[in-house]
Amino acid sequence: GVSFDEALLLRELQRRRPGQSKVVSGRNESDQPTVLSGVFEGKTLGTPIAIIVKNQDAKSEDYKEIQYQARLGHADDVWKQKFGHVDYRGGGRASGRETVARVMAGAVAQMLVRALVPEIQVMGFASQIGPFELSDKDIQNLLNSNFESQMIDQYSSRFPGVEHKKVEELLVGAKTEGQSIGGTIEIWIKNSPSGLGQPVFHKIKSDFAQAFMSIGATSGFEMGDGQSATQKEGAKYHGEQEADYGGVRGGITTGEMIKMRGFFKPTSSILDVAKKGRHDPCIVPRAIPVVEAMIWIVLANHLLWKRLDQL
Amino acid sequence: GVSFDEALLLRELQRRRPGQSKVVSGRNESDQPTVLSGVFEGKTLGTPIAIIVKNQDAKSEDYKEIQYQARLGHADDVWKQKFGHVDYRGGGRASGRETVARVMAGAVAQMLVRALVPEIQVMGFASQIGPFELSDKDIQNLLNSNFESQMIDQYSSRFPGVEHKKVEELLVGAKTEGQSIGGTIEIWIKNSPSGLGQPVFHKIKSDFAQAFMSIGATSGFEMGDGQSATQKEGAKYHGEQEADYGGVRGGITTGEMIKMRGFFKPTSSILDVAKKGRHDPCIVPRAIPVVEAMIWIVLANHLLWKRLDQL
Amino acid sequence: GVSFDEALLLRELQRRRPGQSKVVSGRNESDQPTVLSGVFEGKTLGTPIAIIVKNQDAKSEDYKEIQYQARLGHADDVWKQKFGHVDYRGGGRASGRETVARVMAGAVAQMLVRALVPEIQVMGFASQIGPFELSDKDIQNLLNSNFESQMIDQYSSRFPGVEHKKVEELLVGAKTEGQSIGGTIEIWIKNSPSGLGQPVFHKIKSDFAQAFMSIGATSGFEMGDGQSATQKEGAKYHGEQEADYGGVRGGITTGEMIKMRGFFKPTSSILDVAKKGRHDPCIVPRAIPVVEAMIWIVLANHLLWKRLDQL
Amino acid sequence: GVSFDEALLLRELQRRRPGQSKVVSGRNESDQPTVLSGVFEGKTLGTPIAIIVKNQDAKSEDYKEIQYQARLGHADDVWKQKFGHVDYRGGGRASGRETVARVMAGAVAQMLVRALVPEIQVMGFASQIGPFELSDKDIQNLLNSNFESQMIDQYSSRFPGVEHKKVEELLVGAKTEGQSIGGTIEIWIKNSPSGLGQPVFHKIKSDFAQAFMSIGATSGFEMGDGQSATQKEGAKYHGEQEADYGGVRGGITTGEMIKMRGFFKPTSSILDVAKKGRHDPCIVPRAIPVVEAMIWIVLANHLLWKRLDQL
Repeated sequence: GVSFDEALLLRELQRRRPGQSKVVSGRNESDQPTVLSGVFEGKTLGTPIAIIVKNQDAKSEDYKEIQYQARLGHADDVWKQKFGHVDYRGGGRASGRETVARVMAGAVAQMLVRALVPEIQVMGFASQIGPFELSDKDIQNLLNSNFESQMIDQYSSRFPGVEHKKVEELLVGAKTEGQSIGGTIEIWIKNSPSGLGQPVFHKIKSDFAQAFMSIGATSGFEMGDGQSATQKEGAKYHGEQEADYGGVRGGITTGEMIKMRGFFKPTSSILDVAKKGRHDPCIVPRAIPVVEAMIWIVLANHLLWKRLDQL
Repeated sequence: GVSFDEALLLRELQRRRPGQSKVVSGRNESDQPTVLSGVFEGKTLGTPIAIIVKNQDAKSEDYKEIQYQARLGHADDVWKQKFGHVDYRGGGRASGRETVARVMAGAVAQMLVRALVPEIQVMGFASQIGPFELSDKDIQNLLNSNFESQMIDQYSSRFPGVEHKKVEELLVGAKTEGQSIGGTIEIWIKNSPSGLGQPVFHKIKSDFAQAFMSIGATSGFEMGDGQSATQKEGAKYHGEQEADYGGVRGGITTGEMIKMRGFFKPTSSILDVAKKGRHDPCIVPRAIPVVEAMIWIVLANHLLWKRLDQL
Repeated sequence: GVSFDEALLLRELQRRRPGQSKVVSGRNESDQPTVLSGVFEGKTLGTPIAIIVKNQDAKSEDYKEIQYQARLGHADDVWKQKFGHVDYRGGGRASGRETVARVMAGAVAQMLVRALVPEIQVMGFASQIGPFELSDKDIQNLLNSNFESQMIDQYSSRFPGVEHKKVEELLVGAKTEGQSIGGTIEIWIKNSPSGLGQPVFHKIKSDFAQAFMSIGATSGFEMGDGQSATQKEGAKYHGEQEADYGGVRGGITTGEMIKMRGFFKPTSSILDVAKKGRHDPCIVPRAIPVVEAMIWIVLANHLLWKRLDQL
Repeated sequence: GVSFDEALLLRELQRRRPGQSKVVSGRNESDQPTVLSGVFEGKTLGTPIAIIVKNQDAKSEDYKEIQYQARLGHADDVWKQKFGHVDYRGGGRASGRETVARVMAGAVAQMLVRALVPEIQVMGFASQIGPFELSDKDIQNLLNSNFESQMIDQYSSRFPGVEHKKVEELLVGAKTEGQSIGGTIEIWIKNSPSGLGQPVFHKIKSDFAQAFMSIGATSGFEMGDGQSATQKEGAKYHGEQEADYGGVRGGITTGEMIKMRGFFKPTSSILDVAKKGRHDPCIVPRAIPVVEAMIWIVLANHLLWKRLDQL
């Protein structure tokens, strides 16, 4: 019974698509989804929703050489050893291409969550790319914003700070040189209901961490103050409201703003002559809709779970 | 058919126990386990293993006042709102007391993993407590060690560095003053089999992250180089073996040493006159066997999963 | 938040207990439960409910000989081959003793279901034991009854028919001679909500069948008209309301009375001199509370599931 | 790494297809599968296998009237009430059309099982259709056969008995008149490995029962002697090898031949002028490959599960 918002689905796919700007991979995929099942007369049926997106710009020949030679930093060889039989074209499930499916699932989860909690807002952005970090003033501007992802999407790098031009230059340069760069994604959730999260093994911070770390090239995850909390003195931290628990206490949302951060290594698709212009110099801009998708999925799960909390 | 190593179970419980040293909570719990089922003639049966530990030093009266007043930084109130009916004595499942069960489950998982991979070693230690951090030399000593947790346990703070005396003084002082301190736990796994980890949603880094973040007071998790990888240039990072992927590529173990770090906030049980001397000034020393337990559980799951990889 | 009805728990255990009458095993077990967790001030907490019942009249020596010799019709040997290491005392998980746990879980499920649907009633009875079957008149009396299991429990055989005395004589005789007898349990559910059951793989008839067939010594299961429906002509069957679909259509409850039947083989614990008087001549009377327990569990699952049906 | 036997997939779909003979629905669906993922160079990758089959002969207009009027004996109305929003064209997931997916999944499961246990054979057949039942001599012939389903498929009714002509006449007549008939499917599994089945809740008989009863129009399931075992005296039954446990003891396969039976009601698609010639007079012939598919799926699950039995 959820209204199926096809425009939302298309928009999210568009945000993840390669070729969307000069700071990302130039591979040309239109990523047009076809809904095969589960939707009827504009609403979900409760039956499985199957959506397919076909590859258009994959050239299997490009990957021929990989058949014989594992790529530096890539998972090709561990994968091959593990499963015995692998599809060497594009890394199979180890490829970033699998995140198309995450974005589609996330879009559907988003439709459900918005149907249940219309006021909720999820906003992801790059808080750091290589040597550049958002300033306190940048952060303040974001806090005062209307929390719409369109605002972030104005920046091709999705780095919503005064230094965004420098970041874009850095990325264009890296793309030209076949270099790669790491970065940090920050996610804020506004107007989350309280009471999301299950005790012990499915604390919501635990599920957010798993969801984030299931994405390729991730190297760490923080909730609220993250690592910096380890340096604080408890009496002051907890007592004087200095603490930012990230909107979660005891593993359960409090209704306050949820804040988390995730780290990405520099991508390993570098120095790769055969694929010139087809690699992402930094995965962060295109990873933002992917991370948001995972967040929507976790929120949807926990909203359903919450229906079982009380009699 | 796994040999049930009761000494191992007792040792792990002892490592987690309050009252084990002057730097931890003085609450006196002997934490003696009773095995109710699943073990026969010294070996597991494959049937569920039930083990109980009874509370001895819990004084329900101590918690009477909490019934009416939620504790600062604690989850009592979010919990109450969520479930309607809660056990106000000691925080229920929001209490650190639930980690006894994790340590017991982890001990059993450890028995299974050691039966399958006798050479594997898991070593957790405090790499940072408040302002103190292990030096490069400390780390080097650990790398040259035999990776036995007994070596770490020599230090009541489980901070295996030259500054350990200072750390212990800090903790004793904080305990006296009702202050609390955060810190970092680092876990190394030596001689892990390669090929552990499942694609997409159960990458091993994803499951480690979830397992860690399911523990109370955690605020972040890193695999390998973690956040610091975001600052690296890919060409150099991946090309010159500068990278420490943490023993995991494509979400799958490579057989190299696995390295991860987890962050703990300062505990919220502070300033709490009624419980003087019964709080942990820093949760890190006692959390180490808990974190290790979760790691053993993830390893056990993935070793079983690996049995399904190939025909 | 469910009221924990300890009297209900005790009553259900009592109904399953050996030694309750002369037509069942004389083994003397009081089956006193101890609630270890999950209940506080008379209500469930949402945390796991642990309840233990200790064996009292098990004499391990009785089973010594089985160590060397598998019992006729028993699963001892298949079990041993499968798991390598088994507990030969009493058949382990292959023993009917494991159904104590089912009855306890079923009692808790019953508390939940009754809290959500106070008017629901589940009534199981023996509709056939050996050569004796309930007559149409017996069935009519049951349909006119108040559907309380106490009414069934008046009969030690739980065969609520005019021939119940003969059935009891048959059972007493079989017990004396070390003979065993099969039978049929029929379960009726009155005032079930409509809409229970999930499409395709968790139709409610499918889950009832699994729940029933997971009990030892079961050999078949029928919903509504069962096998007899195979003999009907559809036009008449569906058109003239002759059909008894068992309260389920398309795998989903309709709100009409649910009817199902389950078959039990004669028990295999026969001719077993060492255990004279300690075997059940027919498992049906004591299996009734076990089957009902499984039904309550399925109902509880599906009632929770139903909370996810619509927005 | 499993060889993907596309011919097997096509053959199984062909066996289920409407329009395959004059005794089944004349609806014309070619049921051509397209493999979208999970197979590479003729072998499975371990990644999800997606296969689609498109409807060709569905005329949505045919179902227009159902939009306003629920069909007799059909689940349309319970479904509608449960989910609020349904696809009225063809019954959605309540339609027999969903069994195409079961047959495809079963074919893949069959490929896996045959790769692990090449000698295993699963043979399903109609043992009863309306008033006709296989004779003892028919059964004896089957026991002496080579257990190939081709042998069964010679008969359009899949009733492999001397009276098969009469059965076919009955079905053709019923089809013409818009009448429907019930029946019984029997499944035999030869050369099953021993040790399949898990204790307590996933006994293999329990999983077979669930798998069978998840199919539409089923009304009962029997293992081995089924209901007839309820009439036997245990001493004779177990002692003199009279018993046919159906190849399962204690819920675990013994390696002996597995035997089970499932009951089907007369289909409810009757008297339905608009769909003249497009209904199945008896679902049994076309249900046989569906039931077999479910059996292969259960076998595949339990073969994988068995890998976890011992160290």
